Amino acid sequence: MVKVAVVEGDGIGREVVPVARDILAAVRPDIEFFDVEVGYDRWERTGSACDEETIAALRSADAILFGAITTPPDPGYRSVLVQIRRALDLYANVRPIRGEGVDVVIVRENTEGLYSGIGWTEPDRACTVRVVSRRGSERIARYACTLAKSRRHLTVGNKANVLKSDCLFVEVCTAEAARAGVPCTFCYIDALCLDLLMHPDRYDVIVTTNIFGDILSDAAAYLVGGLGLLPSANIGEGHALFEPVHGSAPDIAGKNVANPIAAIQSAAMLLEHLGDPASAAVVEEAVDRVLRAGIRTPDLGGAAGTREFGAAVLREVGRG
Amino acid sequence: MVKVAVVEGDGIGREVVPVARDILAAVRPDIEFFDVEVGYDRWERTGSACDEETIAALRSADAILFGAITTPPDPGYRSVLVQIRRALDLYANVRPIRGEGVDVVIVRENTEGLYSGIGWTEPDRACTVRVVSRRGSERIARYACTLAKSRRHLTVGNKANVLKSDCLFVEVCTAEAARAGVPCTFCYIDALCLDLLMHPDRYDVIVTTNIFGDILSDAAAYLVGGLGLLPSANIGEGHALFEPVHGSAPDIAGKNVANPIAAIQSAAMLLEHLGDPASAAVVEEAVDRVLRAGIRTPDLGGAAGTREFGAAVLREVGRG
Ligand SMILES: CC(C)[C@H](C(=O)O)[C@@H](O)C(=O)O
Ligand SMILES: CC(C)[C@H](C(=O)O)[C@@H](O)C(=O)O
Repeated sequence: MVKVAVVEGDGIGREVVPVARDILAAVRPDIEFFDVEVGYDRWERTGSACDEETIAALRSADAILFGAITTPPDPGYRSVLVQIRRALDLYANVRPIRGEGVDVVIVRENTEGLYSGIGWTEPDRACTVRVVSRRGSERIARYACTLAKSRRHLTVGNKANVLKSDCLFVEVCTAEAARAGVPCTFCYIDALCLDLLMHPDRYDVIVTTNIFGDILSDAAAYLVGGLGLLPSANIGEGHALFEPVHGSAPDIAGKNVANPIAAIQSAAMLLEHLGDPASAAVVEEAVDRVLRAGIRTPDLGGAAGTREFGAAVLREVGRG
Repeated sequence: MVKVAVVEGDGIGREVVPVARDILAAVRPDIEFFDVEVGYDRWERTGSACDEETIAALRSADAILFGAITTPPDPGYRSVLVQIRRALDLYANVRPIRGEGVDVVIVRENTEGLYSGIGWTEPDRACTVRVVSRRGSERIARYACTLAKSRRHLTVGNKANVLKSDCLFVEVCTAEAARAGVPCTFCYIDALCLDLLMHPDRYDVIVTTNIFGDILSDAAAYLVGGLGLLPSANIGEGHALFEPVHGSAPDIAGKNVANPIAAIQSAAMLLEHLGDPASAAVVEEAVDRVLRAGIRTPDLGGAAGTREFGAAVLREVGRG
């Protein structure tokens, strides 16, 4: 039996995750789901967004299906998602971007860089330390190289012309790519953001540090019409969390208009991770058939609701 | 008499700057130009890319017209442009992005953040300190608010949900916008990159910290067909440097194919800065007329060379 923790989170997370979960349940009746509550809603109600017990529950799962969480820009509030990624050491944030003429995977280092949590405040300035470790760079480079090996080539997004910490990242990626025999090029992150938009066909696997990957993947979402279609996997040694890249979108929450595709595709990545590519393919193809049938949520110019889109995919999965 | 230092730099800098300089000379015969050599070519020849004497020469100018510099990703080589920005304390990097349905100005803090130059290397990790100071934030916020006051509104690009150092930046921007009476909203930098691409009409003046501005402006360049059309101003208390946002592009250098528009528009920003908006307008309109006449460099689908395009603008300036 497989245990999947389900975190709906806040906002549209509460709408898209149930859709993805039903689809998972349909293709894999052996999955045992259990709910874990974390996030802003919980924080407002109980004063705690996530605690040690929550982390322990997440740790006990074979995989985590995650929605989205609202982070208020309140200095006292630490992003729960960032907390979970660190606690479970989910070091690889994998974001495939697929669409017309685009087939790119962004592999983002997910535990250090500017997300180190290290910093201090002086009376007249605030400092955050960007940490690039050899071990952290090695494992993300290795992950990206393994992926690139089964695909085409690797691009290393960096800012080594300004950040000495990126010289280490570039050095490690160079070594790992050579070892793996993967063709590898380097691109400054600013130029990469633009060139990826202008010539997506030139890119295959892109590896980069934490916040650069954060920004790059949002920019790349433009290529596929926005965040509605971007799934992601957060992978560690013993744990894995799957989530749409989009946020909790409080402005459209509760209206049955959110696009559940990214959440459904995240569920497909979860199946892939469980070693079940056949079921993942059934889900992916079901989504494709529904889209081809012209059923779409409003962000893609359609009139289907979140639930109706989900029901259509569920029907196709039954046929798959 | 007005003294303008001219730094061609490397690669296509040597092609686009002479074009911009000739146009400046045509509209303002009172400008006295003097050349300053800095950059990679100089470094290869003399072992020094820029020294105290160079900085002193740049300091003596009323304004600097700057091309582009090649920075090799060599740990021993420090970016000359970053060095000059700091030495002359050019704290505001102003990047207007104008095109079909787009009229945005990115105001990038230009002296601190991840460009602090502060960092250290341990045996197994490398660290860079992101510095956000109250004074640095105040002056850039004030600059952006003054600009926004004469336009429409302000957006503050930040990542305060993760970086405690951005809480200070957000706090200062909030206070300055309130003081100036400028409508102000906040947006996480990742979301901003995407939303600016999807809905450019929603943005007017955007203020953000150093590396976020670096990345955001390249992403925004997509809206106007690439870097060929992006000029910029680097403004300090007593000094100012004007440069195209594009780099030295060694791959196309020396072929008379580089687009000089960004350099010419940077010259127009220089005129504006000298308190001569009339001449700036003459230059801007000359470029527009040449484009409307169908004369374009290859990046815009035309067949004109860098020099031919420049000559056409020069003729129009004569008529302006
Ligand atoms: C919500 C936020 C903390 C998060 C991040 O910065 O990583 C998000 O933007 C993402 O990309 O997953
Ligand atoms: C060349 C590089 C140091 C520079 C920067 O990072 O600021 C460039 O990308 C820019 O945007 O002016």
